[in-house]
Amino acid sequence: MSQQQQQQQEAVNGVSSRGKVLTLDTINPNVKRVEYAVRGPIVQRAVQLEKELREGANKPFTEVIRANIGDAHAMGQKPITFFRQVLALCSYPELLKENTFPEDAKSRARRLLQACGGGSIGAYSASQGIECIRQDVARYIERRDGGISSNPDNIYLSTGASDAIVTMLKLLVSGEGRTRTGVMISIPQYPLYSAALADLGAVQINYYLNEDNCWSLDVAELRRSVTEARQHCNPRVLCIINPGNPTGQVQSRQCIEEVIRFAKEEHLFLMADEVYQDNVYKDNKFHSFKKVLFEMGPEYSNTVELASFHSTSKCYMGECGLRGGYMEVINLDPDVKAQLTKLVSVSLCSPVLGQIMMDLVVNHPQPDEPSYSTFMKERTEVLTALAEKAALTEQIFNTTPGIKCNPVQGAMYTFPRISLPQKAIDKAKEGGQIPDMYYCMRLLEEEGICLVPGSGFGQREGTFHFRMTILPRTEKLKIVLQKICAFHKKFTEEFS
Amino acid sequence: MSQQQQQQQEAVNGVSSRGKVLTLDTINPNVKRVEYAVRGPIVQRAVQLEKELREGANKPFTEVIRANIGDAHAMGQKPITFFRQVLALCSYPELLKENTFPEDAKSRARRLLQACGGGSIGAYSASQGIECIRQDVARYIERRDGGISSNPDNIYLSTGASDAIVTMLKLLVSGEGRTRTGVMISIPQYPLYSAALADLGAVQINYYLNEDNCWSLDVAELRRSVTEARQHCNPRVLCIINPGNPTGQVQSRQCIEEVIRFAKEEHLFLMADEVYQDNVYKDNKFHSFKKVLFEMGPEYSNTVELASFHSTSKCYMGECGLRGGYMEVINLDPDVKAQLTKLVSVSLCSPVLGQIMMDLVVNHPQPDEPSYSTFMKERTEVLTALAEKAALTEQIFNTTPGIKCNPVQGAMYTFPRISLPQKAIDKAKEGGQIPDMYYCMRLLEEEGICLVPGSGFGQREGTFHFRMTILPRTEKLKIVLQKICAFHKKFTEEFS
Repeated sequence: MSQQQQQQQEAVNGVSSRGKVLTLDTINPNVKRVEYAVRGPIVQRAVQLEKELREGANKPFTEVIRANIGDAHAMGQKPITFFRQVLALCSYPELLKENTFPEDAKSRARRLLQACGGGSIGAYSASQGIECIRQDVARYIERRDGGISSNPDNIYLSTGASDAIVTMLKLLVSGEGRTRTGVMISIPQYPLYSAALADLGAVQINYYLNEDNCWSLDVAELRRSVTEARQHCNPRVLCIINPGNPTGQVQSRQCIEEVIRFAKEEHLFLMADEVYQDNVYKDNKFHSFKKVLFEMGPEYSNTVELASFHSTSKCYMGECGLRGGYMEVINLDPDVKAQLTKLVSVSLCSPVLGQIMMDLVVNHPQPDEPSYSTFMKERTEVLTALAEKAALTEQIFNTTPGIKCNPVQGAMYTFPRISLPQKAIDKAKEGGQIPDMYYCMRLLEEEGICLVPGSGFGQREGTFHFRMTILPRTEKLKIVLQKICAFHKKFTEEFS
Repeated sequence: MSQQQQQQQEAVNGVSSRGKVLTLDTINPNVKRVEYAVRGPIVQRAVQLEKELREGANKPFTEVIRANIGDAHAMGQKPITFFRQVLALCSYPELLKENTFPEDAKSRARRLLQACGGGSIGAYSASQGIECIRQDVARYIERRDGGISSNPDNIYLSTGASDAIVTMLKLLVSGEGRTRTGVMISIPQYPLYSAALADLGAVQINYYLNEDNCWSLDVAELRRSVTEARQHCNPRVLCIINPGNPTGQVQSRQCIEEVIRFAKEEHLFLMADEVYQDNVYKDNKFHSFKKVLFEMGPEYSNTVELASFHSTSKCYMGECGLRGGYMEVINLDPDVKAQLTKLVSVSLCSPVLGQIMMDLVVNHPQPDEPSYSTFMKERTEVLTALAEKAALTEQIFNTTPGIKCNPVQGAMYTFPRISLPQKAIDKAKEGGQIPDMYYCMRLLEEEGICLVPGSGFGQREGTFHFRMTILPRTEKLKIVLQKICAFHKKFTEEFS
């Protein structure tokens, strides 16, 4: 019933039948427009299937494999021992008195506790984050970027990277109609971006990555996209994900330089989502936007506004549940920075244990410390396995006709293109489903494998994909890949 | 420089002088309107003063006492041992093998870890929160409310209560101009509400608490307020804070019933901020809105939409840094609930250790468990001391002419009214300051005591107040109260 019909009915029946205050007709319309595929209908069905399995239902599979989300620990990856020791010590400082823990874990915990109000992780921190952690983050960035200086005042600790990305977008969105802020995002994209833009009522401007060239970013395409967008909105922001999610490409230094030049020419605020900065495989190398910006000289480093994001959730640690992250802002107007600081203060502070995890990531054990060798062993194991799995994924998928998979250069996903028979496309449309959603739903029902359809990330019209994480253990991943290939053959035959 | 002037200058100078993308002129105007007094200028000055003291500056005080925010651990309150033991066990499950911890802490940790993906707090949880924790919350609510049933599907775990409050408001705000959603909030209010409404561009509708009657809520005032508001917006939400922040009143059952009746009559969605539900002193008793709603019978319990909020940050545990909380929704339209679930999924999940802390709060040690006696002792100590301090605060303040303090019936703040001499008011205005801000700034500079001016919470025109927490340890609190009284006398004399 529409709001109007409802009001008419109210007039007839009197006040008591007014129904609910909050309905689909009266809800914030921006919220209705929000979509978030990586936790969408397919995942809800996966949860149901798991429940049915637990209750003894007979299925063609014995477990649901969740390859829909970059959730390393859920897929069996073990946490880094040192990180968790420090968390435990900070949570229950009585443990500092015992001999269970190595000295470096204890001294790290003591230092972090000293920086907490009343020496407790239960106190609020400063809204921008604990000062000594922001200092550690700045020093990490300096080491990462070959000595280019980083100011702790430019660091904001956040509740995962998502929180900081949404906050930064919120500052940037203004205007109405043709002056409404436009935000350029890659297609395929990580759906946090489209969701946040819908929520904020901003204009989403799509630029397409070049699938034929390993999902590379092409400045000519950026230019096409911004030029078209200027007809109907005010493009002010360019978002980049590097290493790429869901597409797994790693940008070359040259490409980043071109993007920065483009941002300056077109007067765009740069947002660099760099949460996979340690997830880079084979001969690829991660270059931070900050570093390239400063190497381009003062004409750029003094002018281009940049926010870069990092997180505890990805890389080799995979500590998603801690909700830790940081953002570094460059060339932000001081008045805007004051507004940012005010805005983050409304949510008081990000979780203190997430902040502490972020500290451990940027300030891990050093060669002269007792935990160093274990730490290095654990980290190397994870990263080596990921590199192997990245190669394996590309290799196995590309043996199957109808699946075409770019190299996984970085991050933890593959986004292969799938050819769907016209009859399957028709069948999906008859059922009111997007074809790749139909494909993924069938895969889930028949093989118990949970992927996200490419339509959840965006793809060129008429092409179909899915996103899959490479996080299952190597032996399991092999089986999953083989099952998907076999399913694809069967599915293709069924509709031929 | 305005945007227009800037554009003109650009036209003259060419592109390179365009200046920044993001400035005070181009920032999201709603963000500019956000204010958040409990972390505002006075707190920033307090941080500076602390730094100056550390660097050896000579001040009329040796430490800054932060009585501006309800941050128990920062004021020296000790965490509950059992809670922290379980946190440590969950963070570093190797500890389960040792004999350091009581069995009930271990079994609690094992159960919670089992509910985590891959048995790790590093995995994302379901966006609504870990299922067994939502079940525990529902059972807690049932016990609290004398058996009235609670459905775990109606529980959403959140990043503190603030996060859930903002999410719920976001769903509720729609319309433009005269149809824009209006949200009724008490004056004085907790500034999260005004900040969130500014951010969302909703209309803030003020209703005044009755200071002359212990800050009670008067339905006639609600009616006046909503009637006036209907002239210029669409009032759809009524927010209540009980026990009150900053005003410390506890609502009677009778009052809650009247509020619910009013909400039904006026077709308002009820938001009950009940984060201080354990902070109730002397002969006062906490009644939850949920309980009263259901006791009023199906005419109300089947129709009135209610969201109630709780947090790990207050009560006897004071675990602010964990950022744990929950919301229970009643009579939410199922389609709206689906939208809510979708919306919270965009931020993936609330911090898992915050969820675990929330579980421990709602599911604390029982009489037959080894940790029970220590737990009860620790909890009782905190609550007894708070009750003492509540009484002490009222008593000491009311001995001073010009300070008038209502009883602190609950929560952890006092909001006394201060009489300011006209000359002081004039002096403040000359300096462009709000008079109670001037007063609090002087108190900070001269005594090192950090309070929040009443203007940050709202107050009736021409009256002045401040908010102070009652969290300092009893002996220290006495000194603080006496110092404030002495300052008030001195200040009054200076301007007489």
